[in-house]
Amino acid sequence: MVHTIIVRGFHLDLYGHVNNARYLEFLEEARWELLDTRIDLDDWHRRGLAFTVVKIAINYRLGASLGDALEVRTSLTRLESRSGTFEQNIFFVGTEEKVADAEVTFVLVDKSTARATQIKGDIREALTALSDESSHCP
Amino acid sequence: MVHTIIVRGFHLDLYGHVNNARYLEFLEEARWELLDTRIDLDDWHRRGLAFTVVKIAINYRLGASLGDALEVRTSLTRLESRSGTFEQNIFFVGTEEKVADAEVTFVLVDKSTARATQIKGDIREALTALSDESSHCP
Amino acid sequence: MVHTIIVRGFHLDLYGHVNNARYLEFLEEARWELLDTRIDLDDWHRRGLAFTVVKIAINYRLGASLGDALEVRTSLTRLESRSGTFEQNIFFVGTEEKVADAEVTFVLVDKSTARATQIKGDIREALTALSDESSHCP
Amino acid sequence: MVHTIIVRGFHLDLYGHVNNARYLEFLEEARWELLDTRIDLDDWHRRGLAFTVVKIAINYRLGASLGDALEVRTSLTRLESRSGTFEQNIFFVGTEEKVADAEVTFVLVDKSTARATQIKGDIREALTALSDESSHCP
Repeated sequence: MVHTIIVRGFHLDLYGHVNNARYLEFLEEARWELLDTRIDLDDWHRRGLAFTVVKIAINYRLGASLGDALEVRTSLTRLESRSGTFEQNIFFVGTEEKVADAEVTFVLVDKSTARATQIKGDIREALTALSDESSHCP
Repeated sequence: MVHTIIVRGFHLDLYGHVNNARYLEFLEEARWELLDTRIDLDDWHRRGLAFTVVKIAINYRLGASLGDALEVRTSLTRLESRSGTFEQNIFFVGTEEKVADAEVTFVLVDKSTARATQIKGDIREALTALSDESSHCP
Repeated sequence: MVHTIIVRGFHLDLYGHVNNARYLEFLEEARWELLDTRIDLDDWHRRGLAFTVVKIAINYRLGASLGDALEVRTSLTRLESRSGTFEQNIFFVGTEEKVADAEVTFVLVDKSTARATQIKGDIREALTALSDESSHCP
Repeated sequence: MVHTIIVRGFHLDLYGHVNNARYLEFLEEARWELLDTRIDLDDWHRRGLAFTVVKIAINYRLGASLGDALEVRTSLTRLESRSGTFEQNIFFVGTEEKVADAEVTFVLVDKSTARATQIKGDIREALTALSDESSHCP
């Protein structure tokens, strides 16, 4: 799943590069786009499950500047019993020049217990489908 | 009520000046500081009233740059039957050099009707006290 | 010129509505999209002219929530000797239900004098073209 | 070095918790506060050195909500030949309840070569001083 962004003035910091915190918004936007089209998040919410990020590790590799077009490639690369991990890579559009890469680990919090729930049944299936598909498209 | 901010790298835009949208966060922060110390907002929430901004008019007068210290001076300048207005001025700290000024109009939305409620009784008194005080300190 | 946004979790405030400051980013994004496609801003920069917003007046009319699709309609409605004004309206996509409307006034700052310059010659023509076109499409 | 924040409405996401990306702004603010008081960053800039974050790894442990007071404790925990690492922990004020913890790795980019420079001489001394001090106060 690929999400595209044009770098605007309000994304920049004092060096004229995209600010560190903004990248996390780009990554979040890309994850929502992926999930929205594949998963019935409303249904998960009704079942009391909240999609919750517990860890982000991001490497900043190249500065992106005003007017640059970026693409975020998102794939689900790991699915454990109670957690999963997205790999997200940000490139200059149409190149293999990497601006940043990140690993984003999530759990599904059961709101009734406030704890990470086991990922199983149809939810595991939906996420596994995501994972299979991700492995095909970069 | 005066709130102070140091301009940081992540506040800036491509010209090295504080970004337009950030000023609205500075203004909101200053309003919360004022309200938090004077008004029992939790009680208002329990009574089903949501403090809601309906209009902001802001003039950008001078660019603020990395490391600048700014102060936001907030006062309640108008209290109508169903709305009120804050005047908020942002200066370089300790000067009368104005960076921006804004008028922020709010209503109290009654969540049961989703409409602006009449501002009366103890709520009017609390806001009037705010207004009196504001007129004394810049 | 119409720009579309899906409301995401990171856009929201405590009431589950898009935060006031975020709207200014939506408006800025929409203005950049309009200008990028019609005007050679790089050339203006080389000539020492900085596109600078001096005033924003925004009315918040309806709350937008998670997953809502919004469209920003931007048009240049006024062009004075030294300033211009964009009218920007935000609707729920495909409806005439208005979420917010704003007037955004700009000047072109001549960096050599740090003052608003006269808008004339080819720059006036480019902006006038923008204005004509805007009047045709909502 | 301890930096304090009150959680405001514009910091929150759809679950009423501070948004992931906002934490990076809290961390950046805390690092600036630490560096500003101890290091002559302007001098480093004049020498063509840009303080550049190359990696952030953050764990989100507890949700922070409207009105919560948070403190960010920042210390320099590692100083290699060409990079250094800050450890930053965010707690509910006055408690040992951890909201988030992060490791932030930086380099000093020499703008003439666009590469990470060796950290040596008075710059190494200034950072080492920071490190010694950090080890005393959490």
